Amino acid sequence: MTLPERNPLPPVGGRLGAQFGFLIEIDRLKTVLRQSPLAAAERRENDAEHSWHLAMMVAVLAEYSDEPIDVGHTIQLVSVHDLVEIYAGDTPLYDDEGRESQEEREKAAAAKLFGLLPDDQARRFRALWDEFEARETAEARFAKAMDRLQPLLLNWMAEGGTWRTPGVTADTVRARKSVIGGASAELWAAAQEIIAEGERRGWVAPGT
Amino acid sequence: MTLPERNPLPPVGGRLGAQFGFLIEIDRLKTVLRQSPLAAAERRENDAEHSWHLAMMVAVLAEYSDEPIDVGHTIQLVSVHDLVEIYAGDTPLYDDEGRESQEEREKAAAAKLFGLLPDDQARRFRALWDEFEARETAEARFAKAMDRLQPLLLNWMAEGGTWRTPGVTADTVRARKSVIGGASAELWAAAQEIIAEGERRGWVAPGT
Repeated sequence: MTLPERNPLPPVGGRLGAQFGFLIEIDRLKTVLRQSPLAAAERRENDAEHSWHLAMMVAVLAEYSDEPIDVGHTIQLVSVHDLVEIYAGDTPLYDDEGRESQEEREKAAAAKLFGLLPDDQARRFRALWDEFEARETAEARFAKAMDRLQPLLLNWMAEGGTWRTPGVTADTVRARKSVIGGASAELWAAAQEIIAEGERRGWVAPGT
Repeated sequence: MTLPERNPLPPVGGRLGAQFGFLIEIDRLKTVLRQSPLAAAERRENDAEHSWHLAMMVAVLAEYSDEPIDVGHTIQLVSVHDLVEIYAGDTPLYDDEGRESQEEREKAAAAKLFGLLPDDQARRFRALWDEFEARETAEARFAKAMDRLQPLLLNWMAEGGTWRTPGVTADTVRARKSVIGGASAELWAAAQEIIAEGERRGWVAPGT
């Protein structure tokens, strides 16, 4: 049962009623936990907080994009990019098994969630999510880079965080984070410096 | 002490270092609690989750604005609008005493927080916050309307929520929510229907 089905808004129907229903259902994103530890508190981050943080990163760091980007559109991509996890759950970056079934689970989730919206908007939001995943536009490449760069900052603040996942080395981290280089040479250089310093401090297992 | 001072990022200095520092410090927004109860869990909402939810509301409901708005710019306004609460704290909508000192506290917070950024960006983010507060642009009016409409949906889901604050009646709620009407006649009509139905169900004390 969706949240709006639990306590329907009887005074509002039609198109606006469907939109309110979607906006209530996505409250669930605030309960999807990620692996990343917060810098500001002793708990893990949730997807809604993470999505907001990415929006701020886009607004502050857009100048480093190797290609010109539309900031407002890029912020829409990051706001929407994790919505499917409401039904599909978060798949940790270093969970290879989970990542195999991820695409199928997320596509089913997208159909269910965006299907709560009026048809034209269901198509528009699905297109935003597809754009993010495909990384064929400059905006999507930058959005994805922020999605990889943000946990790096949180891991730094936690003196390791998910870098300490068993089996993960500095090489694994570099491989997973290399998509940052597809959007910004300067941010990728900075990310590599941070990983290398984490390696020197023993916050991530040494690479080969 | 700011968060980045606690664990400085030695490999990154200069302009990018300052920007990373700001982006780490604003992690604190995830720890600023609001009065609103979540629809999806038994706890209160925090400012970061709230800001993301407003971004989604802008993306879904922009078509109801009485004036044309730039969606991307409006999303930037809502992403930034509560940042000052990192140092000034959340001032509940129905706390008249707190609201008297709110402006002064928030201006001091803005100077401190945006001051972490390089000067040009400090000015740009301060300007976004000022624009939101002044409500002189169509984008700011719509952003503010979303800020008032979102807790209404959460209160509905909680069968009252902060509507049950002692001393608050349906008239108080209507007075505080009337700014929605400054952005969208259709959304204000829907909001009034929701408040009236809440009143009929006894979720808010009756107005006169």
